[in-house]
Amino acid sequence: MLNLIKMGGKLIEDEFLLDTFLKNFHKLSGPKILIHGGASYASFLLKRLGLYPKMVEGRRITTTKTLEVLVMSYSGLLNKQLVATLQAQGINALGLSGADGNLICSFSRSVKSIDYGHVGDFNKKSVNIKYLYSLIQLNYVPVICAITHDSKGKLLNTNADTIASYIAITMSEIEEINLHYCFEKKGVLRNIEDPNSYYTKINFEKFEKFRNGMIPKLENAFYALKKGVRKVSIGNSSSIKGVKNKTLLYL
Amino acid sequence: MLNLIKMGGKLIEDEFLLDTFLKNFHKLSGPKILIHGGASYASFLLKRLGLYPKMVEGRRITTTKTLEVLVMSYSGLLNKQLVATLQAQGINALGLSGADGNLICSFSRSVKSIDYGHVGDFNKKSVNIKYLYSLIQLNYVPVICAITHDSKGKLLNTNADTIASYIAITMSEIEEINLHYCFEKKGVLRNIEDPNSYYTKINFEKFEKFRNGMIPKLENAFYALKKGVRKVSIGNSSSIKGVKNKTLLYL
Repeated sequence: MLNLIKMGGKLIEDEFLLDTFLKNFHKLSGPKILIHGGASYASFLLKRLGLYPKMVEGRRITTTKTLEVLVMSYSGLLNKQLVATLQAQGINALGLSGADGNLICSFSRSVKSIDYGHVGDFNKKSVNIKYLYSLIQLNYVPVICAITHDSKGKLLNTNADTIASYIAITMSEIEEINLHYCFEKKGVLRNIEDPNSYYTKINFEKFEKFRNGMIPKLENAFYALKKGVRKVSIGNSSSIKGVKNKTLLYL
Repeated sequence: MLNLIKMGGKLIEDEFLLDTFLKNFHKLSGPKILIHGGASYASFLLKRLGLYPKMVEGRRITTTKTLEVLVMSYSGLLNKQLVATLQAQGINALGLSGADGNLICSFSRSVKSIDYGHVGDFNKKSVNIKYLYSLIQLNYVPVICAITHDSKGKLLNTNADTIASYIAITMSEIEEINLHYCFEKKGVLRNIEDPNSYYTKINFEKFEKFRNGMIPKLENAFYALKKGVRKVSIGNSSSIKGVKNKTLLYL
């Protein structure tokens, strides 16, 4: 079995949360993959550079300048700091963007009513499973950031939750995958104001009645489950290995 | 034989020079490695962030903030743009910092009269040749940037010319290495004002009488030659494959 952990942005930026996350990630035995974004750091850097987010209908547009900052933040500072920290713990981490080794070849989102800019979407053939598997077999721990490429020379901003879901689906063709979306909360909350009110389980039927901010994440999570990923859960760092403080998803 | 090409910063930043470089790099058959820095882009970004270089006795000090910008520039934007462009040309490029896969484990420069900050120096065991060779055997083209780590969780700024020299020396234990320092000039110039006045050859004796800005680069180059690298040269993009427009070094 292979553990695929997506870490949320807040876990990267908060020193205490990061330390707790890494300790728990370290305890996971067997092959594992780490996936991260880092939107809050990128937003901080965008502001420092005087680049304010361009929004259309509440959604961020990835302009050329924004993309540069995302690439610098995700593939640059955050990815390499994570890799160096994991190396210090004796984990042979290897930082990757989707362009490296042609790992994830996405395509620019087609322009309909809104042009989202340099955003990459997936298709079935996006993940270069052969390459990823060869790294796993060599005992590396891939640390993958939320940047992909279109194989025509363009880098693209891609949602890290979606990357996690697609990699899990593709890898599950050859190995049982345990996909865990790790963030600062104990799971999907019944009541957003009460951090302890997490569901221990949610099935697809219940999800369809949901109306909260976690819908995009849950969509990615359920999609992975539907496409053959063995186990999908959402929770905090302590639940990477344990059974508490997480919401288990089932169909 | 393996070709190891160090590309100068100006080749990355000038669109025309970059295009010419990549065309010539593409023509090189057989295993190859690309090494780059990108100090001019980093300086541009430092200024945009209001971080002005801290200098002591004419040499740049790598403060914590400076290091972050170097990591973002080298491992982030420049490395990933290079990788994506090479991928579009059908070259299976793989971007790496020294932290990735524990490729280059350097040590913080010891503080004597000057504290250079987060700067990494080499020793004999710095280069993880086993990993690098496994990538070459899998037909990847490593694209290595000028960031290393100390295996204790710290990233370090390391001179790209020195990285090229050390990787060449280490790899030459198992394969014949052709090390080429590629920049915008035709070679080492007799007269800095005349771009055509390049030496076709320089030996170590002649180098020792030199007093020009190229001494650090030549020191790295001659060191590689002394330590067993088969062929070392300095020149422009057209000389990656050809014999013109380069200065060949010999002992």
